[in-house]
Amino acid sequence: MPILSTRITSLNAGGGDGWEIFYKARALRTAGVPVTELTIGEPDERTDPAILTEMHRAATAGHTGYAIVPGIPALRDAIAARVTERTGVPTTRDNVLVTPGGQSALFAAHMAACNPGDAALMIEPHYVTYPGTIRAAGAIPHSIETRPEHSFFPDPAEVRRKARQTGASALLVNSPNNPTGAIYPRATLEGLAEVACDGDFWLISDEVYDTQIWEGEHLSPRALPGMAERTMVIGSLSKSHAMTGSRIGWLIAPEAAIAALIDLATNTTYGVPGYIQDAALYALTSDDALEPRVAEPFRRRRAQAQEILARQNIVGLVPSGGAMYLFLDIRATGLSGIEFADALLDTHRIAVMPGESFGPSAAGFLRVALTIPDDRFAEALTTLTGFAATLAKAA
Amino acid sequence: MPILSTRITSLNAGGGDGWEIFYKARALRTAGVPVTELTIGEPDERTDPAILTEMHRAATAGHTGYAIVPGIPALRDAIAARVTERTGVPTTRDNVLVTPGGQSALFAAHMAACNPGDAALMIEPHYVTYPGTIRAAGAIPHSIETRPEHSFFPDPAEVRRKARQTGASALLVNSPNNPTGAIYPRATLEGLAEVACDGDFWLISDEVYDTQIWEGEHLSPRALPGMAERTMVIGSLSKSHAMTGSRIGWLIAPEAAIAALIDLATNTTYGVPGYIQDAALYALTSDDALEPRVAEPFRRRRAQAQEILARQNIVGLVPSGGAMYLFLDIRATGLSGIEFADALLDTHRIAVMPGESFGPSAAGFLRVALTIPDDRFAEALTTLTGFAATLAKAA
Repeated sequence: MPILSTRITSLNAGGGDGWEIFYKARALRTAGVPVTELTIGEPDERTDPAILTEMHRAATAGHTGYAIVPGIPALRDAIAARVTERTGVPTTRDNVLVTPGGQSALFAAHMAACNPGDAALMIEPHYVTYPGTIRAAGAIPHSIETRPEHSFFPDPAEVRRKARQTGASALLVNSPNNPTGAIYPRATLEGLAEVACDGDFWLISDEVYDTQIWEGEHLSPRALPGMAERTMVIGSLSKSHAMTGSRIGWLIAPEAAIAALIDLATNTTYGVPGYIQDAALYALTSDDALEPRVAEPFRRRRAQAQEILARQNIVGLVPSGGAMYLFLDIRATGLSGIEFADALLDTHRIAVMPGESFGPSAAGFLRVALTIPDDRFAEALTTLTGFAATLAKAA
Repeated sequence: MPILSTRITSLNAGGGDGWEIFYKARALRTAGVPVTELTIGEPDERTDPAILTEMHRAATAGHTGYAIVPGIPALRDAIAARVTERTGVPTTRDNVLVTPGGQSALFAAHMAACNPGDAALMIEPHYVTYPGTIRAAGAIPHSIETRPEHSFFPDPAEVRRKARQTGASALLVNSPNNPTGAIYPRATLEGLAEVACDGDFWLISDEVYDTQIWEGEHLSPRALPGMAERTMVIGSLSKSHAMTGSRIGWLIAPEAAIAALIDLATNTTYGVPGYIQDAALYALTSDDALEPRVAEPFRRRRAQAQEILARQNIVGLVPSGGAMYLFLDIRATGLSGIEFADALLDTHRIAVMPGESFGPSAAGFLRVALTIPDDRFAEALTTLTGFAATLAKAA
């Protein structure tokens, strides 16, 4: 076999891809062992039947041919209208590229912002694929750590130092944050925006959790003065409309960037199925109750979790504002997140994500997805805290 | 706006993207002008309703969550079985990555084979996106010209020279060929395989037209001795099952390459909709009549075209073995392909692809898609030959 490119063989920098517990849980389930699965950000509610009916209508009506690469105009318009309404920033279809999922948008944004070898900054802890995505785009990921005692908010001064030191082309932010649930305050975002302006680099803002706001307010950094022209925003229907498997998302960017990104899409994906775009259009425009209905169970289970966790003092709940996860501090057990997650799976058949999957600053934490029915979720969380208490006693 | 990456702004090397006539035709149609559309490789038959019914069944049954990134095992198995059966090369699911369309597979193959700055060879004339795809992967495209007097077959000796001169990491071949319809003979493919072995580089074989064989026999170069370990094959259901808009394809490669390509997919696409995979599985396994039914109209219209073209001697039909196009020699008109296509659209509202979109060695040729009903197709082709005769007389 000829050699493979260095790029493709070093996506995980020689380590795992962070999904090890998820794979192990899946292998157990395949082998017939029942596992309580709380790793992946997958709503337990399936896609609303009305959305699927519209998809089938579009497909049988003949929308099965090549769809125009940038996205069908009606969907681009609907996304633009949504962004305008939610952020106040005038946005037109020329600012929108429809993509096969948020991950694809994230990759495309880095392809557009970075030349091979460029530095790209990301805030840690971060979604599992961020470093690999940056490496896939040929750029070099640099982490900026955040700390639990600062609510996992990034320090703009630290970002400025790192940007200067590396000559970064892009900074990737994610608020509401996966895994921590942090919603960055206006002052933090203003600080980051100023750094991006001063350094004249791109801000890539992953806002796929922007419909899961439990406390406080979500601010898109694209809405800050001067930022519309240097911000690329990633959006998706995965979390807002329980359409994870449909792989439908978008990128919002300045017109000239979208024009170049359309060229990229022509050469990398060649568009998104037309019937899925029709379904997405329906999801965004036809029923205002869809979004709150998808978000509601997470809000409810989060409240439930707060009660359960208040009854003990071994596992700490990181205060958060949004997203469909709990971020738990299990450092009192003396175990790392990986050790705890592994032991929990082995002992109690409960799968959660170790903090370490999201970067070293999340060591000793766990991400627990709020994605199973309330009673089973309460039971799993109670088991988890009981297990932690046993470990803490033994430590 | 910060600068965009050189990579993304130079995908078309400063020129157009080759789709200009297609865009112009579409603009006319949007403005209400009827245009006979013979540019894009889009079957006029829509996806079979039975496939769409299966898709809807899978979606409403709940297959709307994240599908496993490499592809669902049953589909990977079915693709492996198909490849084994058609080529004789033992192939398992570990040799298969399901991709969101053939274009995505083509991009992924080059990402795997080439480091940024590497040379990648392609045979000209070639599908419109090839140079942009190679550039998107950060590599440098180098064309190897073919000539009409040699049936547009590549000369392995020329490939060997170019490979040595550039230190190429990959050679992209496409048989049956788009746009020429050429099916490479065994001797040509053996010559290319030998060059790839001697140079220890990847052969990337785009075989998306392998179900459209009108004359002769299609040979997958992966089936040649020693080639399974250095060949990546691109497949798709777009042409074989009229599923263009569903964006479902695959990549066949050695196991170790697939393992790395799965990492790439995790960071660039995160998989393919599960209900589309279920529909693809149905398409591949449930009805043997589906494929011939999709191919039949092209075979019929090709025969029809041969008759029409035999009645005149201005427009030459390039002898071909496969694919859903006619490749026409219009050099007797004195016009370039671009000039002819432009004039034909302006005068007769018929849109065809100029040869130049596929590279300079196709200058003075046209690609005409066999994708409208027989009577309208015959009429359009008759108009085209009449127009060519007028031009030739005036020249």
